[in-house]
Amino acid sequence: MGEDTKVDIATLRSQHPDHWKKAAAIRTLTLDAVAAANSGHSGMPMGMADVATVLYEKHLNFDPSAPLWPNRDRFILSAGHGSMLIYSLLHLTGYADMTLEQVKNFRQWGAITAGHPEFGHATGVETTTGPLGQGIANAVGFAMAEESLRGRWGSKIVDHYTYVIAGDGCLMEGVSQEAIALAGKQQLSRLIVLWDNNGITIDGKVSIADVTDQMARFAASGWDVFECDGHDPVAIDKALVQAKASAKPAMIACKTHIALGSSAQDTSKGHGALTDAKLIADTKAAYGWDHAAFEIPGDVRAMWSAIGARGAVTRKSWETRLAALSPAKQADFARIFAGDAPAKLAATIRKVKKDAVEALPKIATRAASEKVLTAVNPVMGETLGGSADLTGSNNTKTADLGVFSPEDRKGRYVYFGIREHGMAAAMNGMALHGGVRPYGGTFMCFTDYARPSMRLSALMGIPVVYVMTHDSIGLGEDGPTHQPVEHLAISRSTPSTLVIRPADLVETAEAWEIALTEKKRPTVLALSRQNLPAVRKTHTNSNMVAKGAYVLAEAEGKRQAILMATGSEVEIALKARDLLQAAGIGTRVVSMPCMELFAAQDEAYRRKILPPGPVRVAIEAGVRAGGWDRWLLGQGGRENKAAFVGMEGFGASAPADRLYKEFGITAEDTAAKVKAML
Amino acid sequence: MGEDTKVDIATLRSQHPDHWKKAAAIRTLTLDAVAAANSGHSGMPMGMADVATVLYEKHLNFDPSAPLWPNRDRFILSAGHGSMLIYSLLHLTGYADMTLEQVKNFRQWGAITAGHPEFGHATGVETTTGPLGQGIANAVGFAMAEESLRGRWGSKIVDHYTYVIAGDGCLMEGVSQEAIALAGKQQLSRLIVLWDNNGITIDGKVSIADVTDQMARFAASGWDVFECDGHDPVAIDKALVQAKASAKPAMIACKTHIALGSSAQDTSKGHGALTDAKLIADTKAAYGWDHAAFEIPGDVRAMWSAIGARGAVTRKSWETRLAALSPAKQADFARIFAGDAPAKLAATIRKVKKDAVEALPKIATRAASEKVLTAVNPVMGETLGGSADLTGSNNTKTADLGVFSPEDRKGRYVYFGIREHGMAAAMNGMALHGGVRPYGGTFMCFTDYARPSMRLSALMGIPVVYVMTHDSIGLGEDGPTHQPVEHLAISRSTPSTLVIRPADLVETAEAWEIALTEKKRPTVLALSRQNLPAVRKTHTNSNMVAKGAYVLAEAEGKRQAILMATGSEVEIALKARDLLQAAGIGTRVVSMPCMELFAAQDEAYRRKILPPGPVRVAIEAGVRAGGWDRWLLGQGGRENKAAFVGMEGFGASAPADRLYKEFGITAEDTAAKVKAML
Repeated sequence: MGEDTKVDIATLRSQHPDHWKKAAAIRTLTLDAVAAANSGHSGMPMGMADVATVLYEKHLNFDPSAPLWPNRDRFILSAGHGSMLIYSLLHLTGYADMTLEQVKNFRQWGAITAGHPEFGHATGVETTTGPLGQGIANAVGFAMAEESLRGRWGSKIVDHYTYVIAGDGCLMEGVSQEAIALAGKQQLSRLIVLWDNNGITIDGKVSIADVTDQMARFAASGWDVFECDGHDPVAIDKALVQAKASAKPAMIACKTHIALGSSAQDTSKGHGALTDAKLIADTKAAYGWDHAAFEIPGDVRAMWSAIGARGAVTRKSWETRLAALSPAKQADFARIFAGDAPAKLAATIRKVKKDAVEALPKIATRAASEKVLTAVNPVMGETLGGSADLTGSNNTKTADLGVFSPEDRKGRYVYFGIREHGMAAAMNGMALHGGVRPYGGTFMCFTDYARPSMRLSALMGIPVVYVMTHDSIGLGEDGPTHQPVEHLAISRSTPSTLVIRPADLVETAEAWEIALTEKKRPTVLALSRQNLPAVRKTHTNSNMVAKGAYVLAEAEGKRQAILMATGSEVEIALKARDLLQAAGIGTRVVSMPCMELFAAQDEAYRRKILPPGPVRVAIEAGVRAGGWDRWLLGQGGRENKAAFVGMEGFGASAPADRLYKEFGITAEDTAAKVKAML
Repeated sequence: MGEDTKVDIATLRSQHPDHWKKAAAIRTLTLDAVAAANSGHSGMPMGMADVATVLYEKHLNFDPSAPLWPNRDRFILSAGHGSMLIYSLLHLTGYADMTLEQVKNFRQWGAITAGHPEFGHATGVETTTGPLGQGIANAVGFAMAEESLRGRWGSKIVDHYTYVIAGDGCLMEGVSQEAIALAGKQQLSRLIVLWDNNGITIDGKVSIADVTDQMARFAASGWDVFECDGHDPVAIDKALVQAKASAKPAMIACKTHIALGSSAQDTSKGHGALTDAKLIADTKAAYGWDHAAFEIPGDVRAMWSAIGARGAVTRKSWETRLAALSPAKQADFARIFAGDAPAKLAATIRKVKKDAVEALPKIATRAASEKVLTAVNPVMGETLGGSADLTGSNNTKTADLGVFSPEDRKGRYVYFGIREHGMAAAMNGMALHGGVRPYGGTFMCFTDYARPSMRLSALMGIPVVYVMTHDSIGLGEDGPTHQPVEHLAISRSTPSTLVIRPADLVETAEAWEIALTEKKRPTVLALSRQNLPAVRKTHTNSNMVAKGAYVLAEAEGKRQAILMATGSEVEIALKARDLLQAAGIGTRVVSMPCMELFAAQDEAYRRKILPPGPVRVAIEAGVRAGGWDRWLLGQGGRENKAAFVGMEGFGASAPADRLYKEFGITAEDTAAKVKAML
């Protein structure tokens, strides 16, 4: 928006007086809350209040009295720093938990009005935003989930839009390109992005860092694009009507003035916290708003209440349609939205495990994962799988899935393209939408690309499954750029994340059972490229991986050493045990597929698995910082009786066997370290 | 490229027979090397051999006899999986280290011909590529470095192009959008991207995941775009001539056939390793190539040798121009390309430290960082600073820098935009180009966005400086999406990375001294948002941070406890010490700004700082997995006499002081933990 663009508040007020008052309520709540908190972002809600008002008044299907109604439209504030926009909307339209008290406690300890919208705090916040670009990329997942469910349940049961407000920051972040391109390919016609085109970022005008023609950019990836004056309610409405009618995803460039009507309008200052009392008073005067702080006059409150009430009819008629389904279908619909696994899952996993101990296949755990999915996908119709262009390597596609595309919405496999970050963000959106259970694959090393979204899976507490194959130097010739070394450490250091590195088919089946029944955490499955022998040779109904660690092979004779290992290194631990037992050294092998689950066991169990006394060696083809000191030195361990067999630096390009030898991750090296300590 | 596009090898051979032979040498070396390794990627070098041949023959300024000549054109293979393309080119044009033996040992232990091009292995590999999108984003940094140096040294001394070969994978990765937009804004007219438009990815046709009109996309961000038949040497040459003449960055869409001439042409199979003997034989026959594996006939070798020899004249005339500069200027040019800090740096840092112990300012370490930069930037003209749209928050811009832009190439401050990943990748490119020393800022939490490039800084061993502010819950109200918790752990678990978290201005000055004199590693500076008291109150000439950890306050009386802390928590440790000493408990405080440097000290020093005996508490507003168990439980520590005061999960939105109290990161909590253990 050029500096020559004038805006006349008086004209805006007089042209659409009722609209103006409704929007002014958002603007003044924002000013008051930010002033009270003495921090926050005033300018965005002040700039986008008109767009949001029209959206909520005329388009968004929502019902504050049944806020989680599955067929509601989803509204995503990708520009999450403008959180007072959504808190104002939720308060004004009558979401029960968004009291005026909460608004007054904006950004304070214990309030649901966090600095950036946090999923799980305030009802009506569909996803956590703030890290830029995430919301728009989540939205692609929401829209894909909607298409998928509509494809399978029909448009009487699932039929809604996903609306996004995105700022320049969202569009500059690379993940937005991945999202835009994916949405364009998938022709997500129910996805509508409202771009807050205010021309301002924190550092100054957008033009100091960007000259991109955003409309041309979206159009280049298969979107329909529209423009409107973001302060003209008629123009906004018209653009939304057009966007909804489009057969493509639609972007509306809304020309707005950041911090509208204040002395900070159209400036970087306006992006931040406007807390100056005179500025606030002058701005309210310009708005014609003569009310106390946080006061919403009765007429304005009534208009907003009416907006909040209008969705109940639509919601109830949807409920009638849902009730017309068979009881079994209704139960299944409720189950998938509750995120519960089907009753059949346990038996399905058990059968995989039983078959495994009979066949004892020597296969890579990525292939084991495919075997599990081949059994699971047919009994769990809500899975939506995919890969970031490594389908054959990640073993994520099973025969029955079909390919999700504009031509086949029943297809359950997504070709995400070479877009790890966009894939992870879309999976977050799918999981948040509900009704589908997403999993997606790439190489473990490229969790780096997906990190911001993987962190948000954890922060939001949603059960996305990351199928991360080629999980060590065992990847071989592709070399250090593709060999994870620190990535187990990274995933494990992220709170609220399950990291499971299974050793064979049985452990892989157990890992998947945990991942698919988990409701509050993402799971990272770290899987091998290389073939591994079966190490679990007798069947147990109980899920041993759920213990986190367990005794895989007991010491014969006096227990002098405990070897701990995960995934592909369990084989090495067992071989080392053979060497040590042959030398008369009683050696226990502990398989430790999941440190988080082991840490969650009681002290007695942990002591049982890792009793004090024997020397301890951990074997993992990653860095020691991957959580090992706790089990080597803590839990009754001792510094001079503990050693680590793993990586100290980056890998190299060579066949995998050679790398294991060169980096000293072998049974012989392990046995030597034990002997040196005895 | 549609499936209806026919290609007639015989016609290609006959139309440009010499060109064909040169390109066929690349293609057959690729086939032979991949077959020998039984792994690799054949299709891309086979598809892009014509483009690369024309580029090296007619455009690229390079000289294998002086491969590091500073004014050479840079060639970057962003599609790094096609590594045999560059290894073939380096071998054929006569780079001394790229012997035929190395080509034969493609992807083997100890060879310089890694699976993906690794910087520092083979001469002529300008940057490590393989993780997609990195090369094109590095290239933007190369081109910016060139513009910056040309601006300051004049076009007689610095005047060259940066050429990139990028594939569909590079362009799908989000980081490419950040790079493209940054290049467009900066009008990097010496940047030329050759897009290998072969329409194929690993999972199938590009169209299964993308419908983007790439030329329109580049044009939308301010690029000139051209097209050519990527197998027609005349058309390729013409497009390169046009691209070089453009005043904008230029993208050439080269229509190519992956795995040209083989039975796997235009298929996903062709992307990978073509190792079937018959396929190889048939392909060579189609090429008219009747030579043994790895054999390059004399006429072809002669033509390539001539190409390799043509740059020496240009290089020598440049050397003549360089020699015409004053000796001081020549020395400075040599110094900045050697990456040596100026002699004045040490005195400059010393003065900052001396002033600091006189003023004892209570400032945030991000503000301390600005003070250091204000002193350093004027005496170190090679710094190029910037921020991903958080300039005022990261304190990265000092008064003298000016803004780098198309209008001012002498400006040394870059508005990178909201592009953490693109910034990090560009900084890698700048550091690799040489002659400039890049630093860039964002919030510590958003190292997540930059992770793939930060890992490559470490893997390549280049001294990029990451200025990561708002390094804990001390960020306050913005909440958990913006509060790093696991990010110190992530950075520390990455090999070859220095992570420094200074406690005050003196430590910040010492941290910068380390970062700016380091030549082989990136440095992550973790800096506080909140004000911190001065803790180093007496001047030392020696750099204490360089020791990694040191005794900041000694115990009075019998030493019963050692408190370790970093950055903003050193203040808490000192307060806890006061509480404990008041209770008669002799307490040492160890400031540990850099674990990597402490770990690098000899055992005697480490024992001196952390003697066995006293109870130990580490205080850091991050997760314990950030390397603490080594110092708590190892190094003579004991499980029942060690505790951690820090974060166990994500943060929350509230004022910082409240958060520290709620999460129990206080002097009182620390003292209580010590007492409980005594």
